[in-house]
This record gives sequence, structure tokens and C-alpha cells, in this order.
Amino acid sequence: MFVCWIDELQWMIIACSDSRVDPALVLGLGLGEAFIVRNIASLVPPHSKESGHSSGASAIEYAVLHLKVEHIMIVGHSRCGGIKALLGMKEDGSNRFSEYIEDWIAIANNASKTAKAKCSHDSPFEDQWTCCVKESVNVSLWNCMSYPFVKEAVQQKKLALHGAYFDFVNGDFQRWALNYRVDEPESL
Amino acid sequence: MFVCWIDELQWMIIACSDSRVDPALVLGLGLGEAFIVRNIASLVPPHSKESGHSSGASAIEYAVLHLKVEHIMIVGHSRCGGIKALLGMKEDGSNRFSEYIEDWIAIANNASKTAKAKCSHDSPFEDQWTCCVKESVNVSLWNCMSYPFVKEAVQQKKLALHGAYFDFVNGDFQRWALNYRVDEPESL
Amino acid sequence: MFVCWIDELQWMIIACSDSRVDPALVLGLGLGEAFIVRNIASLVPPHSKESGHSSGASAIEYAVLHLKVEHIMIVGHSRCGGIKALLGMKEDGSNRFSEYIEDWIAIANNASKTAKAKCSHDSPFEDQWTCCVKESVNVSLWNCMSYPFVKEAVQQKKLALHGAYFDFVNGDFQRWALNYRVDEPESL
Amino acid sequence: MFVCWIDELQWMIIACSDSRVDPALVLGLGLGEAFIVRNIASLVPPHSKESGHSSGASAIEYAVLHLKVEHIMIVGHSRCGGIKALLGMKEDGSNRFSEYIEDWIAIANNASKTAKAKCSHDSPFEDQWTCCVKESVNVSLWNCMSYPFVKEAVQQKKLALHGAYFDFVNGDFQRWALNYRVDEPESL
Amino acid sequence: MFVCWIDELQWMIIACSDSRVDPALVLGLGLGEAFIVRNIASLVPPHSKESGHSSGASAIEYAVLHLKVEHIMIVGHSRCGGIKALLGMKEDGSNRFSEYIEDWIAIANNASKTAKAKCSHDSPFEDQWTCCVKESVNVSLWNCMSYPFVKEAVQQKKLALHGAYFDFVNGDFQRWALNYRVDEPESL
Amino acid sequence: MFVCWIDELQWMIIACSDSRVDPALVLGLGLGEAFIVRNIASLVPPHSKESGHSSGASAIEYAVLHLKVEHIMIVGHSRCGGIKALLGMKEDGSNRFSEYIEDWIAIANNASKTAKAKCSHDSPFEDQWTCCVKESVNVSLWNCMSYPFVKEAVQQKKLALHGAYFDFVNGDFQRWALNYRVDEPESL
Amino acid sequence: MFVCWIDELQWMIIACSDSRVDPALVLGLGLGEAFIVRNIASLVPPHSKESGHSSGASAIEYAVLHLKVEHIMIVGHSRCGGIKALLGMKEDGSNRFSEYIEDWIAIANNASKTAKAKCSHDSPFEDQWTCCVKESVNVSLWNCMSYPFVKEAVQQKKLALHGAYFDFVNGDFQRWALNYRVDEPESL
Amino acid sequence: MFVCWIDELQWMIIACSDSRVDPALVLGLGLGEAFIVRNIASLVPPHSKESGHSSGASAIEYAVLHLKVEHIMIVGHSRCGGIKALLGMKEDGSNRFSEYIEDWIAIANNASKTAKAKCSHDSPFEDQWTCCVKESVNVSLWNCMSYPFVKEAVQQKKLALHGAYFDFVNGDFQRWALNYRVDEPESL
Repeated sequence: MFVCWIDELQWMIIACSDSRVDPALVLGLGLGEAFIVRNIASLVPPHSKESGHSSGASAIEYAVLHLKVEHIMIVGHSRCGGIKALLGMKEDGSNRFSEYIEDWIAIANNASKTAKAKCSHDSPFEDQWTCCVKESVNVSLWNCMSYPFVKEAVQQKKLALHGAYFDFVNGDFQRWALNYRVDEPESL
Repeated sequence: MFVCWIDELQWMIIACSDSRVDPALVLGLGLGEAFIVRNIASLVPPHSKESGHSSGASAIEYAVLHLKVEHIMIVGHSRCGGIKALLGMKEDGSNRFSEYIEDWIAIANNASKTAKAKCSHDSPFEDQWTCCVKESVNVSLWNCMSYPFVKEAVQQKKLALHGAYFDFVNGDFQRWALNYRVDEPESL
Repeated sequence: MFVCWIDELQWMIIACSDSRVDPALVLGLGLGEAFIVRNIASLVPPHSKESGHSSGASAIEYAVLHLKVEHIMIVGHSRCGGIKALLGMKEDGSNRFSEYIEDWIAIANNASKTAKAKCSHDSPFEDQWTCCVKESVNVSLWNCMSYPFVKEAVQQKKLALHGAYFDFVNGDFQRWALNYRVDEPESL
Repeated sequence: MFVCWIDELQWMIIACSDSRVDPALVLGLGLGEAFIVRNIASLVPPHSKESGHSSGASAIEYAVLHLKVEHIMIVGHSRCGGIKALLGMKEDGSNRFSEYIEDWIAIANNASKTAKAKCSHDSPFEDQWTCCVKESVNVSLWNCMSYPFVKEAVQQKKLALHGAYFDFVNGDFQRWALNYRVDEPESL
Repeated sequence: MFVCWIDELQWMIIACSDSRVDPALVLGLGLGEAFIVRNIASLVPPHSKESGHSSGASAIEYAVLHLKVEHIMIVGHSRCGGIKALLGMKEDGSNRFSEYIEDWIAIANNASKTAKAKCSHDSPFEDQWTCCVKESVNVSLWNCMSYPFVKEAVQQKKLALHGAYFDFVNGDFQRWALNYRVDEPESL
Repeated sequence: MFVCWIDELQWMIIACSDSRVDPALVLGLGLGEAFIVRNIASLVPPHSKESGHSSGASAIEYAVLHLKVEHIMIVGHSRCGGIKALLGMKEDGSNRFSEYIEDWIAIANNASKTAKAKCSHDSPFEDQWTCCVKESVNVSLWNCMSYPFVKEAVQQKKLALHGAYFDFVNGDFQRWALNYRVDEPESL
Repeated sequence: MFVCWIDELQWMIIACSDSRVDPALVLGLGLGEAFIVRNIASLVPPHSKESGHSSGASAIEYAVLHLKVEHIMIVGHSRCGGIKALLGMKEDGSNRFSEYIEDWIAIANNASKTAKAKCSHDSPFEDQWTCCVKESVNVSLWNCMSYPFVKEAVQQKKLALHGAYFDFVNGDFQRWALNYRVDEPESL
Repeated sequence: MFVCWIDELQWMIIACSDSRVDPALVLGLGLGEAFIVRNIASLVPPHSKESGHSSGASAIEYAVLHLKVEHIMIVGHSRCGGIKALLGMKEDGSNRFSEYIEDWIAIANNASKTAKAKCSHDSPFEDQWTCCVKESVNVSLWNCMSYPFVKEAVQQKKLALHGAYFDFVNGDFQRWALNYRVDEPESL
């Protein structure tokens, strides 16, 4: 049980659709304990007025403005198939294999670049994979901040953003925070 | 336990983000037992090549073409806040109250029209609400069929589409099927 | 006389412009007996709000909403020149030969793919051709369903959709139905 | 039998979908005697590279370039419902009643204006209606000329364009020609 | 003096800007005798609601609707530089040499095709050039007809369209007419 | 004879289509003496890469880059109908009366504003009219400068731009120059 | 002298064009001491791939990627005319008074909303004005973060973002920082 | 001290962001003495209604219409990095190295062409560089004129445009004027 720190309906959790990482089961949540979105690779697209039907954006808006959740936690996990596909995508799109999946996981393109830059060429693929999952969570955290109502709530300290990584092989659950603050003016 | 009929990773479940209707808990699913998407009101947008980041479409594509699930079940539930908002939306958009939520629940516009037509004016609002939830599931089922890979799999009897309605007040779980079949030609 | 089953102005017939398959003559229809659309290869384009002048869509709308026909029958026929051209079109469009015809018959692109997949490479071209005509009728039937007023009428059992294939060499007339039904919810 | 002048597959006929004016029956055509298009009000849209699926344009292109028909006859008829609707449409679109039909019959907008200008205010509506049907045939004839392959064939005297009006009440069938010719230069 | 047939302000003349073919001098016109447009190669672009500033279209509209001219004469001339450039343009645009001139003379693209088709390969270039000038006049005449107010006036026999070719080497002036007429319906 | 100062094909003249101001007759030009464009109100539209068929732009490009004319003279004239219409146009377009003419004369919108500002309210309309004609010539001169090849030639002193006003009532011909020069840098 | 803390070319300063707040004079900078951008109200537009010529974006890109500045300071000032105009703008744009200025200052629209919300209705306008200037600096700081190269440099602690407010009436110079940090994952 | 000729707030100065050419320091300006815009290479984009946030355009509009400055001076300088980059850009964009900088300096593309044409191939690069800086100032001066309020003020002699070049190596400051004038009409 990793989430003794979750106790009321103040959490929104964004997790992967993968059957092995059901957040209710992993975090021991009961009915009524968290507002949960699940999609491939637990991604959050950036704020955009032109994008079409926005599954994730509508859920975040509802959670922040109506449920007034105090925490949003985005949970990546070990051996995520979506992130593996992302690492295999060529930048020029020449090995495109699907109609929708690649467009979706492309949200985390920068995570792929960062992971490849961080890991040395001779390190095991598993390391790059793990790194890319965590970076994709960071991309989604940053994308959360692009929604004005999220940034507003974070600035007012009404909302905290958390990343998480669940390693279902080792049973390890890691968590970290995104910090953002504008100081008060001080005369020199 | 409603889902003795779910036994392997052959099910995709599309459910609401609402904390009261976690499908793993409601259906007694264990880790590894179902591929789950959760969003506001468990909606599926129709196939469209122009739409932006497609959370749901990418998940359905992955489930049907890669996981080769044999069943997709879309689960609506009693007292769904998204559907309640849908019933309150004016057609001319004059009472618009959010940036993303209304665009999202507008996917089920036709469900709202159908529910209002089916229920007499003096029936309780609860009846209209229940009816609209079920109709919104039907809209999403039909939208599923608009994806060529779904229709193809249904035609080949490799995939079945199910609607469901979970009444968490009464603990009732209803299920129904969408049937689609093209007969063989017969000489007259 | 194949259509003893046609007796009143409750039928809409969509047939090819080909001079050899005049539906009035083939089906023994008298004046006032059927609402008839004829175009190349008896195709129905899918519902689209952006498409321009919609010859077929306006006719279907008129037949279903104003004439309240009870049956729509789409009639393909043997040795259809439009479908033959479709089978010869390359996917990359490199052998494009006309300004309008290819755009029109491209409506049935999926029928071409299906026919090529169903017929073995060493089967006679005639078999592939026959198969593709029938599949193109199925594509058009499905496109009919994309019009909300058609789907609505089918759901309410006020309208039935039929495919047909007329072999003018052998004098054979085959017919089949498209079935679509959403069941009633049942508690588990 | 009005069409002793039709004897081989050299005619393309564009007629209304109305069950009362089947051209095969009205003109006593046998199988193989004419290439026939039927739609609401027997309209031909003008040449446009941007318009979508072009039912009529593809048929005319096929008839002129491939079948090499020598005559195109556009047949209007008495008491045509499409033209009646056209006469009732307001210019500002305020009484719009359908999704597709009005877009389609709007092809003949100018016919409506001409008919209203030609008929005095106190003449019976029937006269205006008859006039508008004939003018709509003229609009379609002119639209035929907008296709370069039609104009080319007319200039080379390989193709003739005819209008026709079938009065099924009185059993009268009228016909007329569109003439277009560029003279040879002559020195002054 | 070629234009004894011009006597009042009932003529609009569209001529080339070339200094050698001033229509006032060539046709012996005095002040007040003709409404004259001059541009490169005496071209008329087709009717288009989207095109920008329309020098020619506004002049034709003014001449037909306000001056109520009874004749429009489009005058091509021998050794026209614009038409020579047109004949040298490659269809794929690979030898493009200017920003505006080619877009303008491309109005007469079809004239170039017709002239090349009409003249045998071993005929002198001069013949092809002469032919293309005359055909470009025909293209412009046809483009005139695309303006509804021109077609209307021609149909009502209030306006006549003339082509002309001035050979300033031989002093020859040729003229011809465009004929367009819709017959009266006749009962068969 | 106003133009003793015109002696070779070094002039391009842009004049009105009006039959009373034929530049060949007014300026006593012979065949071969000037490259002449004529349109309504002798206007030049500004440089724009998106505008459609550009009658005037192609002529100016040809004159400057190919004929290498040394002077462009834009000639306005007294009692110009196009400019009169311009002065009567309302800014909100509420009294629009034509399809093309207003778009064309709108090129000189700023001339109308300037003329109305310069003339006192109680001065005769004729004065405002005369002023607006001259200002419209200035607008066109400035628009000429917007073509890079014109500005380049003016900067290099290879081309001079002139305005002109022909008063056919009084037989007065006025001329003026547009001056544009960038000085040489000087150290302070 | 407020900027003893500026000592090498590691600062980029974004200040207002106003003649009273020249940053070199206010901060006592010598030649070669800071890379300075000045525009109306010292605004930074958000990252956008579609926007046209980007004066500010190109300068920030140059400063961060090529000069590798370690600090960006955005300086607002008391009695800023641009911000005063912003506070007077109506949301519906009905009192629009210029072609460019309003589009530019609209970058800080949210600052106006925040300032109006923070200040009570009966507080002096000066307070609202001061508040809005500071909030507009915060908007620009946040917009800076929207450029990937800025966010990257901030994450890597190579770049710090500062807001500043210069009160030239009281000679007060206030400064504050924008903090952004993603923590390291920690196992629970 | 180069600017004894600057004495009141009647000057707008557009200068480079480069730390070595601060206009207040170079020209000895005190607080309140000039309205100053600074960006990379001191460029002014041309008037365009479609361009996005317009930093420079809004500043010029404010200076001319609200401050009513009597002079605008655009100051280029020796060894300008932006102009050096411009000279190194290939026309086909194949050596593109940044997201924003190249779009911005492309405003002065024509200056690069002019400088390369003016300088012989074997002259030192420094000469070409100096020449290009001065030409880029001329491009920006011309772009200033494209704003109607600037041209209007120049025509009315209320505003003068100046170019300037500051050579910080030799301490030389050069200045020059752009002259534009439309003469008064004179009768011939």
C-alpha cells in the first residue's frame, strides 16, 4: 500500500490503461477515493484552443475547477508499451505503423530526446526505457501547467503536481513534485 | 461481482473517471485482467482524421489491432455528473460555462435529444437522466463502429461491442449488445 | 420479374446509370412504383457536412424523411465498368486518367481492398470483379447508415436496408439485408 | 412513345428520381438504349475543381469521353417537388428545413429568379412552377457547358445538348436545343 | 478604316497594350466613340467570386450593366509578345521567368493547347502563333460568357460578342461572332 | 498636343477606359509610341503575392523589366464616373450596388478620405470630385512604388513616375512627379 | 545605482521604450554590459510557431542559445502608458482605438484581470495600475517559460528569470524571481 | 556626443539590442529624451494586417500618432551579428540554424542581395558587411513608409525619417535622410 497519503477525494490520478497497473489496485484505493483518468502511457496533451475533443483537458478542468482536487499525480510505470513504441519511432516518421497511436504518444517526443541524450550508448535499453517513462511524466506535468486554471491554482498553492513511477517488477513506487513559485517583489 | 464472464485480457473497458465507479472495484478485476480507459462520462468520439491528440481513438486502436481484445464494454453509471451537465446545456450554447468540458460532453448531444424525446415532460428528472446515460453509451458504441478497424473486426465476428449501465445506488449492473451483420446474398 | 415484393411507393432504389441494368425494366416497375437514383456504379457517399452539392445525400434525405420509404435497395450489377476501373486504380494514384470518375469511384476503395484480399491470386478476374461489386454495395449500405436520419429510422425499424446484385448475363438477381440492432439492457 | 429519335446508345439522359417520370417508361427505352442519371429535379451542378464526390460530373465525363454519346438530354417534368421547394425558399435562408435537399436544389437558384421575373404576380402558381422547371433545365444545360470536355465536344459538333419538359398530366413532351457556335474569322 | 460599323458608344473594345495596335488609331475611332480596356494580350479572366482586384471584370460589368453597350469586341493581333511567351511556357512551370506576367497569360492556357494540336509539327512557328492568338480571343470570349450579366444580355439578344484579329503586317482585320441561343420548347 | 515630351517607346501610360479620354487622341500619339493600359479610373492595385489574375501588375512588370520604359504616367481625368461612384460609397458598404466595380474602385479608398478632408463642406461637389481624381492618381503612384522592380528602378534613377490630370472640359492637362530618394550617409 | 549585481554580459534586460526608464541610465550600465530589448510595456509574447516576425522571440533565442546569458530581467515601471491603456480596454473590444497598439498590449490581458480582481473597488486607480504593471511582468515571465530553450535552461539551472518594477517617482527598484524546479524521484 | 541635434522628446530611435551600441550612451541621451525601441539588428517589419503580435509596429504607431515625434532614426552599427548571420544565410534555407532568429533577420533579405551585388567578389568581407548594415537600415526605412500613418505624416512634412550607421571601432557616426515628395500639379 503506497498511498497512505491519499485520504480523501482531493486527488486526481492520471494513469496508463495497461491492465497491470490499475491505480485502484496498486494504490489500494477504495470507491470514492480518487478521480481517475486512464489512457495510453498516462499522457497529458498541452493546452490548445484548436484541438478537437479533449478527453484529458476536460477531465483536468473538471477536477481542478469543480472537484477542486488538491493534488494531481501522473503515474508512469515500468515496461510501458507506449513509451517503448515512442523510443522506436523515427523522427522523420518513416516507420509509421498506426493511425492514432503515434499521434498520441508523440505528445512525449521531447521525453524521448531527453532520455536518449541522458543515457550513454552502451547502457542497457531498459535504462533508457525507464528514463523515458519518467521524462514523459515530466512532459505531462509541464503540459498540465499550460492550462491557465492549473497554473492559477498552483500559484495560489491550492494545487500540487506530482510525478510518479511504478515499477511493477520490483514493486517500487517513486514520487516527486513539480515546484513553481513567483516570489514577492523586494526593494533593492 | 458482476463479471464472472470476464476471464482473460480479452476485454477493453471504457468507464467514467468518477471515483464511485472504479471498474476494477465494481467488476472485481485483478491486475492484468482488463485494458481500461477512463474519462468524463465514458465517451468515445467518432472517427475523424482531422481531430487532434486522440486519447480514446489511440486506445481503441491499440486494444483492437494489437491486444486483439474480443470485447469492448462501455460502462455508464447512475448520477453521472457529465451527463447531468449535458442535459442542462442549451442548444444555442448561451449558457456555456467551461472551456473544455462542454466540448467533450457534446459528443453525446444526440443522446440528450433522444432522452428528452423519450421521457414525458412530467416524468421525474431522474428518469430522463438514467435514460440519457444509457443513450450516451449507445452513441459511444455507434462511434466505436465508425473506426474502420472496429467495424472490420465486428463484421468478422472477432469483436463484440457491449453497453453497460451501473447503478451504484441499487447495485444493479445492466448489460446489452450492439448487433451488426451483413447477410449473405441469396438469389430470388 | 424479380420484384413481386415491391408493391407500393415504399422503395427507394439506387442503381447504376448503365443502359443494360435499367431498374424499371429489370424489376418490372411501373410508373409511380419506386423512387430511383442512378449514378455510376450505384454508389452512396458517406455523410459529410463539408461536401459540396450532394446529389445522393439529398435524394436519400428526401426519400427517408419526406416520402418515408420503408426500404432502400442498392443494386450492383455484373460487368460494371466503374468497378472494373476501381480494381485497376493504383493506390498511389499514379495511373489517374480522369478528372471526376476516379474521385467518384474512390468511394468504394475499401471494397477493392476487400475483394483483392478475399480472392486468391490465381482465381479468374471475373470472380474478383463480382466480389468487388458486391462489396461496393456493402460499402454504400454502410455509408447510408452514416446519415443520422437513416440510422434513426433503422433503429426504429421503420426502414430496412438491402443490397442486391443483378447478373444480366445469367439473369440472376441476388438480395441480402444489412442488420443493425441495439439490444435492451438486461440486469446481470 | 416520344422517342423514335433515340435509336442507339448515343444518348445520355438526366432525369428526376420521381417515380412518375421514369425515363425508360416515358420514352419507351429498352435495355441498352440509354445511359441514365437520375437525381432530385434532374439537376447538373457547375464545373468546380473543389467540390467533393461528384455524382453527376463523373457520369457526364464518362458519357462524353468514354461512351462518346452524341446527345445529352436533361428532362424536367410537371409538378416537380424539388422545384416547388425551390420556389418556396427564401433568399436569406431563414426557412431552411433540411440538411441536404436545399443545398442541392439551390443549384437552380437562378431559375427561380428568372421564373418569378417572367410570370406576372396574378398569374396562377402553376404557371410559375412550369416556367421554373423549364428554366432549371436551362440552368443545368448551361452548367453542362462549364465542363471543358462538354464545351469542346459541342464546339466540334460531336455533341448536342437538349432540354426537355415532360407534362405527365397532359402527356405532353417538349424538347429544345442549346446552340453554341464560334464562327470562322472573316476579313473585313 | 475598318470600323464603319462602329458608330455610337455601343461598343466595348478589349485590346492589347502593345503600342503598335492602338485601337483608336487602327479603327479610326474619335473621342467618345468606344469604351476601351487595354492589357497584355487583350485577355478576359473567367468569372470568379474569390479573385482579387478585377480590372477586366469591373470594366465589363460597367460596360454591360451601366453603359449598356451592344457589342463587345476582343481584338488580338499578329506577333503578340504575350502569346509568344505563352507558347514557350512549359506546362510544369519549370521555365518560369516572371512574377506576374505568366500568371496573367496563363488565362489563355487552353488556347496554347488548342493551337499546338491544330498545327502540324513541321508548319512554321508563325502559323502556330497566329492560331494561338485567335484561340486566345476565343478563350476570352468564352470567359466573357461566364459572367452572369453577360450571358443574360446575350440570351436576351441585347449584347453580341465578337472576336477580332488585326494583322498589322498585312493590314488585315478579321472579325467573327460567338453565337449562343437556347431554343423555344417544341412539343414532339 | 500636350506631349511633345513623349518621343520614343519609353513611356507607359495608364489611363481610363472612358471613351472621352483616349490617350492616343488626347496626347497625339502615333502607332508604336507608347505602351498603354486602360481600365476603370486608371487605377493601379498595390503589390500582393496572393491576388489573382493581375492585369495591371503584369503590364507594369512587362513595361519596367522588359520594355525598360523610362516613364510611367498615370492619367486621371475630369468628371470620372468611377471616382464619382467612389465618393458616393458608404464606408460600411451598405449601399453596395455591383459585384466587381466597387471592389475595383475601392483601391482608391484613401483618395476619397483625403479629398473629403481637404474640401470644406460648403465647397461645390465638383471641387471634391476633381480633388479625389488627383488623389486617386497619387494612390496609384504610391501603389506603383510597392512593386519591388519599380522601387528599384526609381532608386537607380532609371524610371520616373508621373501623375497627370486631363480636364476635357477646359482642355487643360496637368502633370506632376513623385520624388523618392535616399541620401548618401554623411559623418556628423 | 541599483545593479551592482550586474557585472558581465550575462544579463538580458527587457524594458519599456518609455524615455523616462532607459535601463542603461537607471541601472548605471556601461557599453558592453547588457543585451537590451525595448518595446511598449516591456512585454514578451508567448511561444507560437505561427506568429509572424517575432522581434522578442528572436532576441530571447539569441540571448539564451548564443550569448548564453545567465539572467533575464523584465522591467516594468510606474505610470506605464501601455498598461494604463490595457486597464481601459473593454473586453468586447468596443472601444478599440488603434491598429497595432491594442493587439500588442493584449498580451498582458490576464494581468489586467488579475489586477482588477486583487484591488478593491474603492482603492485608488494608482494602486490598480501599479499592481497591473507587476502582474504584466509576471505574464511575460511565464511567457518566457513557454519557449522550450528557456525552460530547458531554467531546468538545468543555467538561467534565472527575474521580474522587476522601477518606480521613477520614488526612485524605488524592486526585484523578484520566478522559481521552477522538478524534484528527483524518491521511493516511498 | 553626436546628437546635439536631439533636444526634446521628438525623436524615436530604433537601435540594436547589442550591448556595445546602447543609444543612450552613444548619443549622450538623458532620461526623458527619446523613445527607444531595441531589437536584433534594429529592424522594422513591413506593414501587414495579418502578422501577429507586432512589437515594432505598435511602437511606431504610438510614437507617430500619440507622442507625435518629428523624427524617426534607425541606427545600424558596425560588426552587427544579426547582419553577419543574414549574409551567411542560403537562399534555399538549407543552412537554417534557429527557430526565430532567421525569420526575424529575413526582414532584411533584400539588403543582403543589394550588398552582394554592390561589392566586388575580391573586396574584403568587412566591406560587404558594412554595406549590408546600411542597406538593412534602408530596408527598414522603406518598411516604415509602408505604415499609412507614417507615409501620411511624411507627406505632410510632420515627420522625417533618418538612417544612421554607428562604427564603434572608429567612433564614426553617419546619418542620412529618406526623401519622399509628391509635387503639385502643373499645367503644361
